[in-house]
Amino acid sequence: MATLPNPAVIPVLDHDKVVTAPFIKCLVRLIRAQDAYGSWKEKCDFDVLDHFTVPEERRCALPLMGDPDPDVLWRLDMFYQAVGVAIEERSGLLVSRTMEISNEGFGRVLFTTRRLVLLSKTLRDVHRFGFSSLRKLAKTGAKLVNDADRVIEAYPDVARA
Amino acid sequence: MATLPNPAVIPVLDHDKVVTAPFIKCLVRLIRAQDAYGSWKEKCDFDVLDHFTVPEERRCALPLMGDPDPDVLWRLDMFYQAVGVAIEERSGLLVSRTMEISNEGFGRVLFTTRRLVLLSKTLRDVHRFGFSSLRKLAKTGAKLVNDADRVIEAYPDVARA
Repeated sequence: MATLPNPAVIPVLDHDKVVTAPFIKCLVRLIRAQDAYGSWKEKCDFDVLDHFTVPEERRCALPLMGDPDPDVLWRLDMFYQAVGVAIEERSGLLVSRTMEISNEGFGRVLFTTRRLVLLSKTLRDVHRFGFSSLRKLAKTGAKLVNDADRVIEAYPDVARA
Repeated sequence: MATLPNPAVIPVLDHDKVVTAPFIKCLVRLIRAQDAYGSWKEKCDFDVLDHFTVPEERRCALPLMGDPDPDVLWRLDMFYQAVGVAIEERSGLLVSRTMEISNEGFGRVLFTTRRLVLLSKTLRDVHRFGFSSLRKLAKTGAKLVNDADRVIEAYPDVARA
C-alpha cells in the first residue's frame, strides 16, 4: 500500500498530465477492472474517462429535469467507488458507502467507517452528472478524499470504535 | 414533547394492549398521517397494522427469493420512518435516514445524526418483511430505538458535532 500514490494530493497539471493525478489513476484502475473481456484494452485513459466530462455547452443542452439512464448511474457509481477506495488507501480503514437515489435522480451518498460519518453528499440532477474538465474531476475527487481524511483526524477514536 | 410517551420503553403487554406500546403508537400515527382521504378512519389500529405481521406458516409459504413489491417496500419504509421519529423524540436530535435497497430486496439502512452513525442494519429478503406478532414488532422497534439512544449517550459530542 505504501507504493500507491496518495489520492488526496491535488496536483497542478496540464491536460496531458491530468491522467497521472492519483485520484484519476484510482478511478481508471476501477473502471479497467470491469473490462473482463479486454475490449477497452486499446483505449487510452482519456477515452476511458471520456463520458465523465460534460462540457458547459453540452450540459446547457441537457434538459433541466430528467430521469438518469443506466450509463450515468454507472459513472456516478464508479466515481463514488473511487472516492471510497481512495479514502481506504489513504486512511487504512474500512469504508462503507450507502447511496440512495430516487428515479428522478435525487438522493444522498454517505461514507461511513464504524460509528463515524466521513462524507455526506446530497445528489441532485444526477442525469447531468459530469465535470467540466478532467482537471475538475481530479480536483473534486481529491477534495472529497481530503475532507474525509480531516474528519478521521478529528475523531480518530470514533472511526475505530 | 414531554407529553409524548417514551418510544424506547418495551412494555410487557398482552395482545389487546399491544397497540398502546409507545413504538406502535408512533408507527400508527405515521401511517394514519398518510390517510389523506380518511378512508382508514373506520379501521382500528389492529387493522391498520394488519400486514406488518406475517405468521410463521404464511412466511414459510413465501418463496425464498423474490422481488419486493411496492406494498412491502412501503411497510418497510413506514417501519424505519417510525424508528427514526422515535429516536428523534427520545433524543431531541435531528436524525436522517439513508436506505439503499436493490431490486432483489437486499441493502442497508443507516440512521445518522451529524457525524455519528446511530444504527446500521443490513436488509435481507425484504419481500418477506414482517413480524411474527404485533408484540414482536413493538419489541423490535423499541430495541432499535434503545440501541440508537445508547450510541448517542456513548458519543454525545459527535452526535452534536
